[in-house]
Amino acid sequence: MIVFPHPKRAEIISFLKELRQEMIAAIEALDNGAFVRQNWSYHEEGGGEISLLRGQHFEKAAVNWSGVGGKNFPADQEQGAFFATGVSLITHMSNPHAPTAHFNLRMIETEKKYWFGGGYDLTPMGFPYSEDSNYFHQISRTALEKYPGLYEEFAQNAASYFYIPHRKKERGAGGLFFDSLNSGNFEKDYTLWKLIGKTFLKAILPIYQKRLNQPYTAEEKEIQLYQRGHYVEFNLVYDRGTKFGFQSGGNPEAILCSLPPLVRW
Amino acid sequence: MIVFPHPKRAEIISFLKELRQEMIAAIEALDNGAFVRQNWSYHEEGGGEISLLRGQHFEKAAVNWSGVGGKNFPADQEQGAFFATGVSLITHMSNPHAPTAHFNLRMIETEKKYWFGGGYDLTPMGFPYSEDSNYFHQISRTALEKYPGLYEEFAQNAASYFYIPHRKKERGAGGLFFDSLNSGNFEKDYTLWKLIGKTFLKAILPIYQKRLNQPYTAEEKEIQLYQRGHYVEFNLVYDRGTKFGFQSGGNPEAILCSLPPLVRW
Repeated sequence: MIVFPHPKRAEIISFLKELRQEMIAAIEALDNGAFVRQNWSYHEEGGGEISLLRGQHFEKAAVNWSGVGGKNFPADQEQGAFFATGVSLITHMSNPHAPTAHFNLRMIETEKKYWFGGGYDLTPMGFPYSEDSNYFHQISRTALEKYPGLYEEFAQNAASYFYIPHRKKERGAGGLFFDSLNSGNFEKDYTLWKLIGKTFLKAILPIYQKRLNQPYTAEEKEIQLYQRGHYVEFNLVYDRGTKFGFQSGGNPEAILCSLPPLVRW
Repeated sequence: MIVFPHPKRAEIISFLKELRQEMIAAIEALDNGAFVRQNWSYHEEGGGEISLLRGQHFEKAAVNWSGVGGKNFPADQEQGAFFATGVSLITHMSNPHAPTAHFNLRMIETEKKYWFGGGYDLTPMGFPYSEDSNYFHQISRTALEKYPGLYEEFAQNAASYFYIPHRKKERGAGGLFFDSLNSGNFEKDYTLWKLIGKTFLKAILPIYQKRLNQPYTAEEKEIQLYQRGHYVEFNLVYDRGTKFGFQSGGNPEAILCSLPPLVRW
């Protein structure tokens, strides 16, 4: 028997908002800029907040929260009323040697079911360093060591999901991805979901500490701008989050926050 | 009874290649650059030629021909073998007061049917001039005056087709768009299709002659770069040509030639 709204909805939202605040603080500590916040309302219930930084090291960083609901789940009307809440983070770095990072945690509930989703992944923009991607993967592998096989499963999900068919390549260096997580044991799933959320900063911050001040040339910057084009192609052509956002009539400025600040084709 | 290949296939290809050569010559006459040509092969039969100019006035212009075939029409396997040939043109201008222009003529045949498609449209990039779009529309209206109601129909098609739902606006100032044209009278359709092809340069060149040297500011250039983002969104999220291209395993460099040289989000 599904209870809608879920009794832990408020707690889940609090967790997401606190995690988001940590991420914002961590990025501001590395940069000389401050996030600008903008609220928006969904046409049915709820809305969200965009936090956008156009800084020195973070050419563009967005850390957005949303919690939107309505009478009919847009992706499947038979699910009845829905509520979807999540935090998304994306970074596009000034330094081409510093990779783009993407993070998302979401919880979706309808009158028929609920599920968790999320993950994080790394995208070098023309200059991949295996020491960086190995470190990034090592953190999530270690985080999930009490869940046998789960790192492998979620890493494989990411490799399959973040694939650009027309470029015949993965979008980046991978990471973790999961969707439709509902084992039947709410507490177990919720604990795992929070755990993944809490390991992201540990996976990315040391990479940024190492790369932010690495020297680079104008030519390397150009290579980065072209690589960013492939990122745009993935997000607009294949990404399910973008599709769901458009389908549900979400705020295009929030949905498209993930697009790089400057791109070449 | 359908004859496959169509007896006029070679003639159609010649018409497209000549038209393309006229377009290339007209653009080169306005710019201080020359197109660079690059051939590519389709994984089944045929291929195409990209012609790309990165010039002074034309920040990026592409005029591409393709003619590709195979055993199964990618959009509908039941159609059997197919052959698709067409010319596409896209311009992205250095001057933000000069609009982007897009042109396409295509003929597709399968073992079951054939049809013509195409059109052309204008997209101001932040600085719309009604005198330009009125002139552009007037040329196509006049060209089609012997076909009662056709200008209105094709212009309405363009308004519907070049619409960006998530931005709640048309991509640009419209033009002509038609697809699946097969009245049962081949010669009649072919004549109309060629007529549309032959009027495009007349519709666009005077606009470029007027705008190419208009003074502009760095701030106006920035506005153009953001407007180009909406163009990318349309082409990657909604455009059927892009979808068909990816679906059929076409050359991504040719399919994505339409994307602007530099874009901001």
